[in-house]
Amino acid sequence: MMANLEKLYTLLENKNYAEFMRAIDETEPIDIAEFISSLPEERQLSVFRMFKKDISADIFAELESEVQERIISAATDTEISSVIEDLYVDDAVDMLEELPANMVKRILQVAKPETRALINRFLSYPENSAGSIMTAEFIDLRRSMTVGEAINHIRKKGIDKETVYVAYVTDNARVLQGTIRLEELLFASDTTLIEEVMISEFAYAGTHDEKETVAQLISKYDLLALPIVDREQRLVGIVTVDDAIDVIEEAATEDIEMMGAITPTDKPYLKTGVWETFKTRFPWLLLLMVSATFTGQIIAGFEGALSAFPVLIAFIPMLMGTGGNSGGQSSVTVIRGLALDEIRMGDIFKVILKELRISLLCGVILAACNFVKILLVDNLIFGNNVDMMSSLVVSLALLVTVVLAKIIGASLPILAKRVGFDPAVMASPLITTIVDALSLLIYFAFAKMILGI
Amino acid sequence: MMANLEKLYTLLENKNYAEFMRAIDETEPIDIAEFISSLPEERQLSVFRMFKKDISADIFAELESEVQERIISAATDTEISSVIEDLYVDDAVDMLEELPANMVKRILQVAKPETRALINRFLSYPENSAGSIMTAEFIDLRRSMTVGEAINHIRKKGIDKETVYVAYVTDNARVLQGTIRLEELLFASDTTLIEEVMISEFAYAGTHDEKETVAQLISKYDLLALPIVDREQRLVGIVTVDDAIDVIEEAATEDIEMMGAITPTDKPYLKTGVWETFKTRFPWLLLLMVSATFTGQIIAGFEGALSAFPVLIAFIPMLMGTGGNSGGQSSVTVIRGLALDEIRMGDIFKVILKELRISLLCGVILAACNFVKILLVDNLIFGNNVDMMSSLVVSLALLVTVVLAKIIGASLPILAKRVGFDPAVMASPLITTIVDALSLLIYFAFAKMILGI
Repeated sequence: MMANLEKLYTLLENKNYAEFMRAIDETEPIDIAEFISSLPEERQLSVFRMFKKDISADIFAELESEVQERIISAATDTEISSVIEDLYVDDAVDMLEELPANMVKRILQVAKPETRALINRFLSYPENSAGSIMTAEFIDLRRSMTVGEAINHIRKKGIDKETVYVAYVTDNARVLQGTIRLEELLFASDTTLIEEVMISEFAYAGTHDEKETVAQLISKYDLLALPIVDREQRLVGIVTVDDAIDVIEEAATEDIEMMGAITPTDKPYLKTGVWETFKTRFPWLLLLMVSATFTGQIIAGFEGALSAFPVLIAFIPMLMGTGGNSGGQSSVTVIRGLALDEIRMGDIFKVILKELRISLLCGVILAACNFVKILLVDNLIFGNNVDMMSSLVVSLALLVTVVLAKIIGASLPILAKRVGFDPAVMASPLITTIVDALSLLIYFAFAKMILGI
Repeated sequence: MMANLEKLYTLLENKNYAEFMRAIDETEPIDIAEFISSLPEERQLSVFRMFKKDISADIFAELESEVQERIISAATDTEISSVIEDLYVDDAVDMLEELPANMVKRILQVAKPETRALINRFLSYPENSAGSIMTAEFIDLRRSMTVGEAINHIRKKGIDKETVYVAYVTDNARVLQGTIRLEELLFASDTTLIEEVMISEFAYAGTHDEKETVAQLISKYDLLALPIVDREQRLVGIVTVDDAIDVIEEAATEDIEMMGAITPTDKPYLKTGVWETFKTRFPWLLLLMVSATFTGQIIAGFEGALSAFPVLIAFIPMLMGTGGNSGGQSSVTVIRGLALDEIRMGDIFKVILKELRISLLCGVILAACNFVKILLVDNLIFGNNVDMMSSLVVSLALLVTVVLAKIIGASLPILAKRVGFDPAVMASPLITTIVDALSLLIYFAFAKMILGI
């Protein structure tokens, strides 16, 4: 139904420009941006130049940063100025953060002084802060206005605003006093005063709050936009729900990447170069590989014992694997719970108690299954001759490993958060490495106790 | 700034009902719901009964299903009927899906016939479909209306609609013809015809499309709502952006849980019982434990060789760990890319080629680091006496394992999707189990070749 890139391409090839522009009129900016990106590099600027001024900025905001860079480096100052003045501040800032320094300088030079000042202010907010994702294009009203005046104000001024569906009531010092949704204005009578219909208890965030906090408030209270205030409670911007969705998706991707032992990036996989991807993965592999030295040392220390009971070696992968999976399950659950604010710092003992009960249940049944499996499968089917006592060692080690793995897996992410780290680093790969070493120590301890090695 | 549950509690305790109701008036339904949940069970219904009819349904929709169940089982038919008629259909359906059958029956009996018919229709859509999350409360216009008539229509009818910010234009057969945003109505002159300002190229989904598809369209095109049509292209409902956010968060949680070898549930961790959580975790642990039998068999088969070269045993955990981590990184990246639609089925060869290049880079450097580490750390510091040839065996096995792990990790999720499975099952735990067995086979093959065991 939407984007028919093929059709656009054919029309352009046949130089059927009238029809092409009509088709463009019915295409969403994000699809037009995709179309431009799919063109050969040398044609991108010339096609971009065909578009009417009023949609150029919308399309430009949706382009990948490489294409933005290419267009800017070839465009004239007037063209750049026209696009930059039409961009919403948050989109302009997004773009500038990706561009090389000399281009940023050129863009800021051609921008109008007030635009430049605004962009510079936005660029100064910390990465991942509410300030860095907000936009300055909102509608503000005064409490002494009538509903009729407010609606007229919105009809007159709203066209450049990122959302007209929520308006913000401020006083002379720009301090935020209330919010009002457009629908409430529409349902009220024209002569009612804004202060009578505005909501004075509302959610908001500060410019230096985490952008995830903003997204969570928007999600929790089903908002279309959240007002952002500075330290003096003055309204300086809003974050709209579409930007909150991007934050939510990005945050989930970051957590998933960290859980998979990858340094998060915000670039899609297929747009990232081999070297860039390598850099996000290699350090973790190296770190985890080197830390496996300890596991190796534990085994090396028991080499004599293992030569006496070589049958014990075969169960090492199963033991370490089950331990890693058990710990991984708990850490993943707790990390996600923390991210969604379903688990809080104060819940740590509740969490540990619950994991203890689950792990005992899992551990006992797994150990029993394993004991029976060794006797039936390993001995009867594979003929491995694992004696009763060795089976007991393996099963007991399994039970203790599962319990410890789950408690470590559940508590480390919470502890990480308490000391200010991202809980997601405490995910499976790191837990696995810790549990690996631990499971071997437990294994050999039981072997010593029961088999006397 | 928002929810002050403490204050509400104190007012209620002191029987200061006037002040309590004023405080409730300024509190968001979701916070009131949280407040009710925090009360002793026997007080929940009596407090719920205090609220005015117009906010009862909003609060009810935000309650946890246990509390909803408790209130309904104690409420009168009139009370139930009043709430159910005021609920949006999607919220009513959400609630009914969680309640026991006898309660569902009672609720449907007290509902008005037309509400009952609507709920029954919605309940019949497949789980996870667009139909199952849509709402029937939308604004529809005709193309022959003027903008002025449309705005009046919205002001008159909009109060019960889930969103008034987007209206939908249908014909006499209810076939969807166009969409129009409220702001465009506000900016147009009152006498303009709707058909002149409506957008006739728009995103939509069918009732049987996946709910994730709906959320992705809303996210991609920054929509406030997406229209949902039946097989005859008739408009039957809309999905609003706040519900899309829930879908996005749920889908990410599900993927994360599956990546951690957990069967997904939609209940928060702390609200899930020990037995329920056990059931989501145990089957995977058992499956992965039993499949580790193969790894054990491979080792058992090489027991003789390992007694001759016991030093090789110590490197098994490092080899399996690095293999698992390498494969996990690739699978996690590809699973997330597929979920966000950044990677498509046709990209499989591009993906494999990229992983091949990354894995060669990772593998070669890791193998070199490992070789040096064995000579310097294991031999010089720990005095393990690993000879040159054994170090070579370990390092070569490492290189090949990393390459294979990454290619398997990247391609299995894509293949799983092609045959209709959820790619997220092909995440780290399963990949690790496969790579574990593979890395041992590679290890022993190199040992045979180079050490002649």
